[in-house]
Amino acid sequence: MTQSNDNRWVKSVTLSPPSLGDNTADADRLEAALKKVLSTDAVFMDLDLVKTLPTLLRQWNYRATAVLFKDSSGAEILVHLAAPDAVDALCGLAVDLGTTRVVLRLIDLSTGEHRGESVFDNPQIAVGPDVLARIHHVEKPGGLNQLNRLIIDGINDQLRALCSRCGISPENIHLMSVAGNTAMTHLLLGLNPRWMIREPYIPAINRPGVCKATELDINVHPNARVLVFPNVGSYFGGDLIAGILYCDMDRRKETAILVDVGTNAEVVLGNRNWMMACAGAAGPALEGGVTRMGATAGPGVIDRIAIDPNTLAFDIHTIEDQPPRGICGSGVIDLAAALFQSAMIDIRGKLLPERCGDRFKVKDGLGHLTIVPAGQSATGEDLCLTQADLDSLIRSKAAMYTILETITGSVGIKQKDLNTFFVAGTFGAYIDPQSAIAIGMIPDLPLERYRSLGNSSLGGATRVLEDPGCFDRVNQIRDVITYMELNVNQDFMNRFSAAKFLPHTDTSRFPTVRPPSCPQVPRKK
Amino acid sequence: MTQSNDNRWVKSVTLSPPSLGDNTADADRLEAALKKVLSTDAVFMDLDLVKTLPTLLRQWNYRATAVLFKDSSGAEILVHLAAPDAVDALCGLAVDLGTTRVVLRLIDLSTGEHRGESVFDNPQIAVGPDVLARIHHVEKPGGLNQLNRLIIDGINDQLRALCSRCGISPENIHLMSVAGNTAMTHLLLGLNPRWMIREPYIPAINRPGVCKATELDINVHPNARVLVFPNVGSYFGGDLIAGILYCDMDRRKETAILVDVGTNAEVVLGNRNWMMACAGAAGPALEGGVTRMGATAGPGVIDRIAIDPNTLAFDIHTIEDQPPRGICGSGVIDLAAALFQSAMIDIRGKLLPERCGDRFKVKDGLGHLTIVPAGQSATGEDLCLTQADLDSLIRSKAAMYTILETITGSVGIKQKDLNTFFVAGTFGAYIDPQSAIAIGMIPDLPLERYRSLGNSSLGGATRVLEDPGCFDRVNQIRDVITYMELNVNQDFMNRFSAAKFLPHTDTSRFPTVRPPSCPQVPRKK
Repeated sequence: MTQSNDNRWVKSVTLSPPSLGDNTADADRLEAALKKVLSTDAVFMDLDLVKTLPTLLRQWNYRATAVLFKDSSGAEILVHLAAPDAVDALCGLAVDLGTTRVVLRLIDLSTGEHRGESVFDNPQIAVGPDVLARIHHVEKPGGLNQLNRLIIDGINDQLRALCSRCGISPENIHLMSVAGNTAMTHLLLGLNPRWMIREPYIPAINRPGVCKATELDINVHPNARVLVFPNVGSYFGGDLIAGILYCDMDRRKETAILVDVGTNAEVVLGNRNWMMACAGAAGPALEGGVTRMGATAGPGVIDRIAIDPNTLAFDIHTIEDQPPRGICGSGVIDLAAALFQSAMIDIRGKLLPERCGDRFKVKDGLGHLTIVPAGQSATGEDLCLTQADLDSLIRSKAAMYTILETITGSVGIKQKDLNTFFVAGTFGAYIDPQSAIAIGMIPDLPLERYRSLGNSSLGGATRVLEDPGCFDRVNQIRDVITYMELNVNQDFMNRFSAAKFLPHTDTSRFPTVRPPSCPQVPRKK
Repeated sequence: MTQSNDNRWVKSVTLSPPSLGDNTADADRLEAALKKVLSTDAVFMDLDLVKTLPTLLRQWNYRATAVLFKDSSGAEILVHLAAPDAVDALCGLAVDLGTTRVVLRLIDLSTGEHRGESVFDNPQIAVGPDVLARIHHVEKPGGLNQLNRLIIDGINDQLRALCSRCGISPENIHLMSVAGNTAMTHLLLGLNPRWMIREPYIPAINRPGVCKATELDINVHPNARVLVFPNVGSYFGGDLIAGILYCDMDRRKETAILVDVGTNAEVVLGNRNWMMACAGAAGPALEGGVTRMGATAGPGVIDRIAIDPNTLAFDIHTIEDQPPRGICGSGVIDLAAALFQSAMIDIRGKLLPERCGDRFKVKDGLGHLTIVPAGQSATGEDLCLTQADLDSLIRSKAAMYTILETITGSVGIKQKDLNTFFVAGTFGAYIDPQSAIAIGMIPDLPLERYRSLGNSSLGGATRVLEDPGCFDRVNQIRDVITYMELNVNQDFMNRFSAAKFLPHTDTSRFPTVRPPSCPQVPRKK
C-alpha cells in the first residue's frame, strides 16, 4: 500500500506571473494553477487564506507548496499554502477512534511516511466501559458535553505529546481523518446518540463529511480539515468503512468477506460491484469480556492455549510471558478448541467431569474448570472457566457463524467459494483461525484464505491522508453498501440452533476438524 | 420583478418518520426530504445545525421550515431550520456597498417583502473620500484593519438600528448579499487592495463566493451566509454584476447596453449569449466632484438648470428647494447643455464673454461664469463655473462617448441599433438624457430607449435573496463577460479628440441636437 510521490495531497504549484495581458486576481490565478495540477474544475479556499495571498505569492515569486483536500460536497479545497521549498513538515493525523482504545498516527503528507503513533485508552472509559453505558450517560445533565470533552481533550493532550516526540508543532497538522464506530463518532462530534439505541435505532447523522478542526475544538492548524468516516447506520460504523477501504474490497473483482469480531459481529460481503453488510449481537464472549477471568489483551493475559490430547497437559502462553492473570477473547477461542479436541467438553460445549479430572469442580452449583491453579496465577487465586462461560461462548460462536451463513446465503454464495476472508480489527488479529474453525465459529476454509488486517480502521484512516484517490472511495463505499437487517425469524433460529454444536450439527461442513481424540489417559483419583 | 411564493430560499419540508424499515439518520432523512423539495442531488449542513436535529425533528413531528442557500461551489446548503409554523421572521439583508453611501435593505425571505432600508455614509470617508485615498491608507500600519473595522462596525450599527425599527432581531437575518466595487469589496473582506492600483492592477480575489457572516464579523445569525458579488477585475466590480442581473441583460435576446457613469465609466454591452465590458477613467467632472462648487446630491444642491435662449435667464432648481449651495453632476451636465444651446459657450466649451455678459468675469487669469450671485446663494458667495470646470467636463464627456463608441465598434454594433440603454447607479438616475445627448456624452437615441435603473447594485443584491434562480446567474454573468482592456492608442485618441466638441465634430451623429440659437438679445452695457 505504498504510494507514488506524485499522488499526494501536497502539490508544488507554479503560477503564471501577472501582466497587463493576464491580470486576473491573485486567488483566481492560484486557482487556475491548481486546477491545472489537479485536472479539476474548481478549487475553493477560505477567506483567511486569501488574505495572505497577495503578500505571499509575490514573496515566493509565484511558486508555492499547496496542501489540498476535499469538502463534504467533494469539491477540491486549498487548506494551506506553504513556501515553494517548504521547510516545515506538512502533516496529517489519522485517528482510530475505538471504544476502548484510541490510536493517533502522524503522517508526513508529502512523503506518506509514518512519523509516529500514540495509543491510549479512550478517556470516556471513566464514564462507562462500553457503548451502551456511555449512551445512557448522555441522558444525565451535561452528560453529552462531558463525554465530548473527554475524547476531545484526550486527543488534544495525546497529539501534543506525539507532535513533541516527533519534533513538530500541532500547527503542522493540516489534515485529519477519523474512523470510529457510529456511537464514538457521534460523541466526538458532540451529537446526541440517544436515539441510536431506541427502536427504530436512528443516528443523528450518517455522513458527517468534512469539517474544520476548529469546529471540533481540536488543536491543530486553525484551517485544518477533518474527514470523519461515514457510517451505514447505528450498528455499522466508519471503522468498518475504513476497513473496506484498507483491504480494497471495493476494488476487487473476486467476492471477498470482511468480518469484525467483537461484541457485535459486523460482516461485509462484496466486490467492486456490490457490497452487502449486516451486523448482529454476538455477545461479549468473543472479546473475552464474559468470563470472570476475562480481560482485554495486556501483560499476563493468556492469549494462546494448547492441550496435549494425550497427557491433557495445558500449554499456556501469556502476553509478555508474565504470570497469568486472565484470558482474552482469542485465548478463550483457543481454549474452547483445545478442550473440544481433547474431549474435555462435548459437542454441546458441556464440561465432561470424568475427562477433566482434578481440574473440574462444582461451585455454587456451577461446573468450573481450573485453567491455572492459584499457586501459579498472578492473582493468587484459581483462574477458572465456568460452564456458564462456555455456554456463552457457544452462543457467541453460533451467532457469528449464523450471521456468516445468513449473509452468504442471502446472495447465493457458497462459503467455500470465498477466496479471501478478511478479519478486521485489532482483536481479530489475535484470533487463531484454526481454533476458530475448530469450534465452528468461522467456515472451514483453507487457512491461507484468512487474512488478518490488524488495525484496519487506522489503516483506512491513514490511506485517505496518503492518497487523494481514496477520498471519493470512502463515500462510494458507504453508498454502495446494502445493509441487510438481520431478521431473527424461525429460519435464523433454526440455523442458530444447528450452529450451537461443536463444530456444527452438520459436521460435513467442517471436514478438516478432526473428531475429538479420547485415548485412555491414566487418571489420578 | 415580483416573485411567486413557490420560488424562495424558505421552504416547508415534511420528512418521512423513521421506522425499522427506514432507519436512516436524522440528518440524512432531512436531506432526503430537502432533495425532493429542491429537485437537487445533495444538501449540506453545518455540524452546529446537525446537533439540534434529533430533538427538533421529534419535537416538530418531522415537519420544519428550512432556510436554504448555496455555497461557493454552488452546492445547496441548509442554513437554518425553524418550526413548521415559524413565528419568527426569516430575513435577508441586501447591501449596496458604495464608496460614498451604503444602503441596507431588509427582506422577508418567505414573502420577498421589503421590510425596511437604511442609508448611511460609508464610514471609511473619515479616512479618505475616494477609492484611491483609501487604498493608499492601507499602506499605513494597521490601515487595512482600520478600514475593515470602519465598514464592518458601520454595517453592524446600522443593521441593529434597522432591525430594531422593523421589530426583528439581527438573529432573524439568515442570508446576506453584498454588491460593491472591487475596492470596497476587498476592504469589507479584509483583503489588501494595494496591488489593484499598481500595474498590472491585480485584485486579491475575483470570486469571493459565499462565506459565513461570522467570518466577516457581521452580527447576524451565527450560521448566516453572505454572498459577496464577484468582480471582473480591479475596475469592474460586483456592483456592475448586480446591475446586469437587475436589468436581466443576461436574459435578453436583444443586445442592450448598461452604463454606470461616475469617475470611472463602466460599460457593458451584450445579451443572453455574450457580454463585453470595459471601464475607463472619465474624470470626476461627471460626479460633480470637479468644480469648486461641485457637491454630491443633497438639500440646496442644484440638480436642474435651464436657460432661456432669448432672455438668457437661468431657471435653477435645487434639491428640496433650499437656497443654492453647490451643483451636482447632473446639474453640471444640464448647465453645459443649456450654455451650449444658448450660445454662451462655443463648440469647444469655451465661455463666450460677449454672450455671457455680466455673468462673466476673469479671476486669477481664469474665466468665471456666475451661476448664482452671492446675494441669492446659501454660502453668501457667488456660485461660479470656471473655464477649467468646463474643460474638465468636456474631457469627461468625450471620454464617456469615446468609450461607448469603442465598445460598440469593437463588436460591430451601430449605436443607433441599441434598443435599450440602461443607466445604472444612483447618480445615473439624476442625469437628464436629453442634456447628456445635447453635449454629446451619450448617443443621440430616442429618449424612450434610455432607462434609468436607480440603485441597480442594491436591486441586484436584493434579487439574489428574493429568488434562488438568481444565485447561479451571478457567477454565470461574471464568467460570460469578456473584459476589454481600453487600449489608449492613436485610434482612441483620434476618436477622443473628435468627441471633445459639442456635441461632436461629426454633427450628423446628433441629428436631434439643434444648433445653438443666438438671437440678438439686448445686452446691458
